[in-house]
Amino acid sequence: MFKAILQGILDESNGMGVVLMGYDGIAVEQEMAQGESVDPHLVAVEYANVLKEVQKAAEVLQTGGLEEVSINTGRFRVILRMLTDEYFVALTLRRDGNFGKARYLLMRDAEKLKKELMG
Amino acid sequence: MFKAILQGILDESNGMGVVLMGYDGIAVEQEMAQGESVDPHLVAVEYANVLKEVQKAAEVLQTGGLEEVSINTGRFRVILRMLTDEYFVALTLRRDGNFGKARYLLMRDAEKLKKELMG
Repeated sequence: MFKAILQGILDESNGMGVVLMGYDGIAVEQEMAQGESVDPHLVAVEYANVLKEVQKAAEVLQTGGLEEVSINTGRFRVILRMLTDEYFVALTLRRDGNFGKARYLLMRDAEKLKKELMG
Repeated sequence: MFKAILQGILDESNGMGVVLMGYDGIAVEQEMAQGESVDPHLVAVEYANVLKEVQKAAEVLQTGGLEEVSINTGRFRVILRMLTDEYFVALTLRRDGNFGKARYLLMRDAEKLKKELMG
């Protein structure tokens, strides 16, 4: 039940949108807060390319597996959490959102999402 | 005095290394904790490419200017903070380092570094 897990993350983080996505940019499931104008799917597609670059860098530097990337811009905060070699989850918050809590929620629910992905 | 500012960040964060660098991958100044085997310069060079990708994504998504990117891997945490259109500062921590404090220190000293860059 990806939908229920994502909805829980979105509600508890007071986020704008959350999407479960493959590195190929294809979304498995997504949830969006009502009235939001930012498409979490679009955000995740753009950042899927970023993750590929980060993974390349991590390999070169032998820093161990990539676990989480967060990006703060003038308007948003995006937290990307790796789930498997093929999938990640991306949560978009408003700039004044609770970054620490959002990271915690993604960490907390990562195992549940992994289990679902493994079927 | 880039060196003194960087040394302060490194000491207070108990970090592994910190580097002030251009997006072209050329370091202005760097400080490294004694006995550390990770070259903060190498880390920053690799992640300079990542930042270019993130900036492209931020432009496409019109999310406002890029301010900070953090990357957690199995062994390290790296926090990249934008200073100007040409320069950023990268701080590398051990995995068990105090991420929140490190982000705060970079935010606190970003203005000082910017002033020095502006000459």
